[in-house]
Amino acid sequence: MTGPVSEPVRIGLLGCGTVGQAVVRTLSQDGATIARASGHRLEVGPILVRDTGRPRPGVDPALLTDDPARVIDDPDVQVIVEVMGGVEPTFEYLRRALGRGVSVVTANKQLIARHGPELFQIAQAAGAELRFEASACAAIPVIKVLRESLLAAQITAVTGIVNGTTNFILTEMARAGLPYDAALAQAQELGYAEADPTDDVGGADAAAKMAILSSIAFHSRVGIDDVPYEGIDRLQAEDLAQADALGFVVKLLGVARLSDGGVSVRVYPALVSKGHRLAAIGGPDNAVLVESRTTGELMLVGPGAGGDATASAVVADILSILGTHQGSFLHNALADSGRPVLPADEVSSAFYVRMSVTDRPGVLARVASVFGDEGLSIRTVLQSGTGDAARLVLVLHEGVEGRMRRALGTVRALDDVRGEPVMLRVLGSGEGQL
Amino acid sequence: MTGPVSEPVRIGLLGCGTVGQAVVRTLSQDGATIARASGHRLEVGPILVRDTGRPRPGVDPALLTDDPARVIDDPDVQVIVEVMGGVEPTFEYLRRALGRGVSVVTANKQLIARHGPELFQIAQAAGAELRFEASACAAIPVIKVLRESLLAAQITAVTGIVNGTTNFILTEMARAGLPYDAALAQAQELGYAEADPTDDVGGADAAAKMAILSSIAFHSRVGIDDVPYEGIDRLQAEDLAQADALGFVVKLLGVARLSDGGVSVRVYPALVSKGHRLAAIGGPDNAVLVESRTTGELMLVGPGAGGDATASAVVADILSILGTHQGSFLHNALADSGRPVLPADEVSSAFYVRMSVTDRPGVLARVASVFGDEGLSIRTVLQSGTGDAARLVLVLHEGVEGRMRRALGTVRALDDVRGEPVMLRVLGSGEGQL
Repeated sequence: MTGPVSEPVRIGLLGCGTVGQAVVRTLSQDGATIARASGHRLEVGPILVRDTGRPRPGVDPALLTDDPARVIDDPDVQVIVEVMGGVEPTFEYLRRALGRGVSVVTANKQLIARHGPELFQIAQAAGAELRFEASACAAIPVIKVLRESLLAAQITAVTGIVNGTTNFILTEMARAGLPYDAALAQAQELGYAEADPTDDVGGADAAAKMAILSSIAFHSRVGIDDVPYEGIDRLQAEDLAQADALGFVVKLLGVARLSDGGVSVRVYPALVSKGHRLAAIGGPDNAVLVESRTTGELMLVGPGAGGDATASAVVADILSILGTHQGSFLHNALADSGRPVLPADEVSSAFYVRMSVTDRPGVLARVASVFGDEGLSIRTVLQSGTGDAARLVLVLHEGVEGRMRRALGTVRALDDVRGEPVMLRVLGSGEGQL
Repeated sequence: MTGPVSEPVRIGLLGCGTVGQAVVRTLSQDGATIARASGHRLEVGPILVRDTGRPRPGVDPALLTDDPARVIDDPDVQVIVEVMGGVEPTFEYLRRALGRGVSVVTANKQLIARHGPELFQIAQAAGAELRFEASACAAIPVIKVLRESLLAAQITAVTGIVNGTTNFILTEMARAGLPYDAALAQAQELGYAEADPTDDVGGADAAAKMAILSSIAFHSRVGIDDVPYEGIDRLQAEDLAQADALGFVVKLLGVARLSDGGVSVRVYPALVSKGHRLAAIGGPDNAVLVESRTTGELMLVGPGAGGDATASAVVADILSILGTHQGSFLHNALADSGRPVLPADEVSSAFYVRMSVTDRPGVLARVASVFGDEGLSIRTVLQSGTGDAARLVLVLHEGVEGRMRRALGTVRALDDVRGEPVMLRVLGSGEGQL
């Protein structure tokens, strides 16, 4: 059973690059889920692009226009999604849209960090909303958490790995001992760094994000020019090696602190103790650590970039603006049956099994054949002890619980097996050497 | 400048134990911040307690009542906070309040996991809201993130360490080699485990939380009886040792998966690969890992219990129900100046400094005295190489940036120092042995 679905809501787009196309794709592929969960049917278009003739997979060419007014001034458009980037003419377009009372969702960190205050004033005066979750850390909902969940928390510090490009490069430099240039080249090859990586590796991208996050966290205006930044482009391999020897890893950090009634926000490469939670954040991931007296340390981790992840934040912002219909989401979630609950026997896991065995020739073969007969394959065997104190530990590949239950019943009945076998599930692949 | 603040909003409480007192304390201590940030002035009372005569620090005894009707039926109460726990008579009280159209915030996981659907139906019919962020993982805003940020994401898995008591016990068993009973006793001593730990160590607490989280994540009704659970109380030290040897740690996991159109939700102690992100979650912390095609792996980490942390989630729910006034939060956050930005020279950090030196007697003393003269104290010194290729690495305790800048200027000018010293900031204490 679904909740009531309202009239279609028209979503205009400014820009249709990687993120814009991902927004169009998400709204199309997940439209039924969105309608069921939120009560809103979202329809895309018009879409402002520079070149209407260029084919964009999954995007109806009839929706494209190269005339900004056809999006900004369209009376049917209820929410405008800005994914064209840049400061001008984007700033001018958004001023116009918000001034007309049209709500805006933007992924543009430079624009918000530079001109956020003016845009918010225009939006407020016109009764429009301006949302910008996608402007920092893509799908990691750090802005919503700071704005809403931690609105009343007295936040004292926000420390973040907020640039995935540099985190990938630093991780590879440390892991594979690569020099900076080679790690950057690899990041570019894998799509984690742009052809011109200046904004990422120089720290400017992280500085814009930290300006936004610290403004919200500290209820203060921190502009992009208030955030001094240093990048990783001048880091030397020698310092990474020294850091390692001293018990640290090197990360590009955004560090925002409240002290003596003032705010300080900076971006720099720093030595992070290997025991610190941020040290474990590797590859292209982002992480934001928020500290307050009441909440302790909260950390949010996830991919900090990518078209689909950014589009996910854009769609969440659209739905926040539209609001969730009473009787749609919660009804589906809790009062309805939705999807069936599977019987436990049909669920898959990997398994660990330990049993006491009598140390006799062929015992492993007999035990292994029981699991094999149930289609459960063995990944690792560890045998220890002798005689009656012998012990057999097996790690098995993923299999269905019901088969494991039957196999354990059979194994328990073997003459070689003494007492009750212990079974635990396994997550991940393990790293031990056997 | 602050935004407009509305008429006071009256908050009734059912219960005034650890969490209730923390709610009262938060609303009193942080009242000004809450008003400035949200536009709402929250006033506490009446408060239902069993024994009105017992003193509760920071709680005005005049607000206490032992008559449920004085809270539930009070026409001035706009939001009721339920922190009394238990299923009966709490369920009855909330039905009555919601039926009257009064919104409710609850921290009661058993109640939501058992009777959520009925309560939501009543709330919906009466136009009231029911919020329950505090019912799972305290201040970690996992319910808001699932409900709002990931509403449209096609979530495929939710894997969580959602019980802090068991995570603390398992961490101590692994770290200090403690047997289960000793680790449990230690958890009880530190307040991480209750006198009767059955619900925590047996897995029932985690099962209730996973029923709630998976209901929301999968837009499906998962009741508490749909979640088979096993606890850590029968884990054997031998299996922890085997796990370690195989490259795993042992965690009590909540595992919710979508497969073949059905949902499976279970709680069990599992071997988790040391390289997996959940393996790093130690002590009493909770973590929830959410996977979807569009967002990849998102993880939220933080303290999973505690009065202040739970109260923080309750207050956030109250403010979500009341909504944020236009012109209060965003105006404060982005259009206003709020707190001043400190000059970079006044900010403190710990530091790493590397320099090339000429290997002459007294060079370390001369360099060290420069930092000492600026009040910067040295934590670690690492010297290597000889002659003109000698290298000096210093890690310094926290100090003010301006002093470090001056010290570096002086050090650079020493005859012993060749080329430009490299300076990086340091976060955390490092673990290396020197």
